[in-house]
Order: sequence, then structure tokens, then C-alpha cells
Amino acid sequence: MMKTPPDIVIHRLALYLRFLEDCIRENTSATINSQYLSRKLHIPAHQIRKDLSFFGKFGAAGIGYGSQDLLKKIRDILGVDKPWDLCICGVGNLGTALLMYKGFRENNLNIVAAFDSDIRKIGRRKQGVTVYDIGKMPGILKRLRVDIAIIATPAAVAQEIADALVECRVRAILNFAPAKLTVPAHVKLRSVDLSTELINLTYFLCAAR
Amino acid sequence: MMKTPPDIVIHRLALYLRFLEDCIRENTSATINSQYLSRKLHIPAHQIRKDLSFFGKFGAAGIGYGSQDLLKKIRDILGVDKPWDLCICGVGNLGTALLMYKGFRENNLNIVAAFDSDIRKIGRRKQGVTVYDIGKMPGILKRLRVDIAIIATPAAVAQEIADALVECRVRAILNFAPAKLTVPAHVKLRSVDLSTELINLTYFLCAAR
Repeated sequence: MMKTPPDIVIHRLALYLRFLEDCIRENTSATINSQYLSRKLHIPAHQIRKDLSFFGKFGAAGIGYGSQDLLKKIRDILGVDKPWDLCICGVGNLGTALLMYKGFRENNLNIVAAFDSDIRKIGRRKQGVTVYDIGKMPGILKRLRVDIAIIATPAAVAQEIADALVECRVRAILNFAPAKLTVPAHVKLRSVDLSTELINLTYFLCAAR
Repeated sequence: MMKTPPDIVIHRLALYLRFLEDCIRENTSATINSQYLSRKLHIPAHQIRKDLSFFGKFGAAGIGYGSQDLLKKIRDILGVDKPWDLCICGVGNLGTALLMYKGFRENNLNIVAAFDSDIRKIGRRKQGVTVYDIGKMPGILKRLRVDIAIIATPAAVAQEIADALVECRVRAILNFAPAKLTVPAHVKLRSVDLSTELINLTYFLCAAR
């Protein structure tokens, strides 16, 4: 069996994916090599080759990779061509923004259900998605079988929701609540920390002062 | 003058920062070395040492870094202890969610103004922040002098807003709109792609199938 690559390798693969998509959109070059990727992405070339080697043999020595071919292989590895069913827990401002986010649909990510505890929201449809009572999540998720759940609740209830999702056999969770969550090892959790996104900018402003 | 470290180094520094904060919160160890960081974060130890060496001499050979000391130095480098003034362009669901996001205030990121084109929103206060007419942004930003602007508008108008912000001498922009933006080289732009956040999860689900 293949050795499991660490998260950071998958994160870099996603960077390569976005970069290759841009190259192909802009028609830059039919072939690409690790030195070029390295210069553009500021990642050592040997690390790029090592990252790709996790997933088999790519390209030809001295020639590089076919851009289209490499893109297709990375899309396969990352599973971005397959359709995935998502649910959103918490339909406040952030949850609603995520329901409206066009980038999900463009990437085969289909939101099939939303959950909230507010009776004014339950039973309504938002962006074509029904908002269900979060208390009835177990029964509904048994029927719908979502692949990925997004937590967009207040931080105070996020762990409770994560526990309920694990009980419902959801195996991948994207957490937007500013809370440290704990899930069993068989469940994949990713947390988005919006403050961290700003750190690159504060560094830049500091360095420029 | 110091060589400018590439973005990805700053990104990794932010990872080290969050990891050290956790270590210190959980009282793990008074000293820490690059091998330990490497194991925990899946980044080669020599890369961690190289990343830090951009910013001077850290730690002692064979002993490692004092956790508190390293944390303080990274906080200094990244400028996260300084207060920064932010504005938010677009007060739809995402903009409102960002106005309510507690993580910003905890990290010295103060939202001082919001802008929208909807006359029902202009003049109102949301989370203690006044929503101004986005058409009047130049005059208001001249007076307030924000450090960082967040774009949370629809994709279709995001470039126009970015251009206006550059005109207003804003030098750092965090873009949440799913649009490729162009800014002059002296302006730092970071775009958050929410679909990319999900790629780690789709990979995990693929690999487990």
C-alpha cells in the first residue's frame, strides 16, 4: 500500500493544481518542470519532485511534465473531479455566505442540506437548500449520507456539533468556528482560521515600515 | 538589507506561531527543537531552520529554541502584536460574518469601517462599525487610514473595488471574492479560496475509499 502523505503535501498539491490551472488558462507552456514550479511557487524543486513521487512516476527526466497531463493526474489524486455532497451546520451570516458561494458548485461540491436551531429558519429554503432542525440531524444524515460537513456555528456549540456529526458517521469536517475541536482519528478535520490569513499581510506591512 | 523571504516562508512562520501557542497553552515544553517541530508539522527540519534564519539567529545548536522566546520573536516578525486597522468592502452575508468574527479582535485586528452600495445598509452600524457608502470610500479612507482592506463583495465588482482601494493608498488587501484580482507590485494581495480548503478533505475521502 502507498505510504500516506502528510497533510502539508496535499496542501502543496492543491497549490500546484491552482497554479497549473492558471498556466493552462493563460496557455503558458505545454510542458512544465519542477525548477519552473519552484521559481514560481517558492518551494524547493526537490520537494516538488518528492511530493509528486508519493503518487507514482510523473514526467520524464530532463523534460519535465506535460502540463495537461500533470493537471489531470493531480485532479485525480485530490478527487476534485468527483462530485461530493456537503451539509452546512449553522445558517447565520457565515453559513448563508457559504450557501451562496459559487466556487463550491464550480468544483463539484454540492450542498444538499443545511441545519440550524433557529425555528424562524427551519423548514425554509436558502439558495435551493432546505434548512433542517439541527436536532433532527441524525435521521436526516442517515438518509442523505453527506461526505463533508461544514461547521459555521458559534464557537460555543461547535464541539457539540462535531460530536453529533461523528455520531452520524460523517468522516470529513471543515470548521469555520474559532474553536479548537477534537474528533476521532478516523475523521478528518480541517479548521479555517481567518486571522491566520491576515498574517501574511501584517508581516508585509511591518517589513515595509 | 535583509533578503525578502517569499510568501510561503511567512505562511510557514504562521504555522509555527499557531503550533507554539498551542504548546505553551498546553505547557508541553520550555524548549523546542526543529526536529520536534518537523515531526509535528511534517516540514523538513532543515527547512524550518532555514525559514527562521531569514530573520537572524535563533536558539542554540544542540539545545533548540526556548518556546516562549521563539514565540515572541515570531510574533514580532509577523507583526501580530501590533494593532492594525481594517475596513471591509461589502456587507453582505460574508462581510457581516467577518464583522462579527471574534478572532480578529483577539488578534489586534480592528475593523474601523465598512462599505456597501446598498442604501438600506448605508449609515447603519453593524457590530459597532459604521457602514459607509462605498462611493464615498476615497474621502473616508483618507481620514481613517486603514492598513488592510477586506473585499467581501460579489466577484463581478471585486476588481473595481480593488482598483479603488489602490487609489486610496491601501497597501494590503485580503480578497474573499471568487475572482482573480490584479494589483500593482507595491500592494500585497492575498486571496482566500474556500474551495481549496475542501481539497484536503476530498483527498482524504478518496484515499480512504
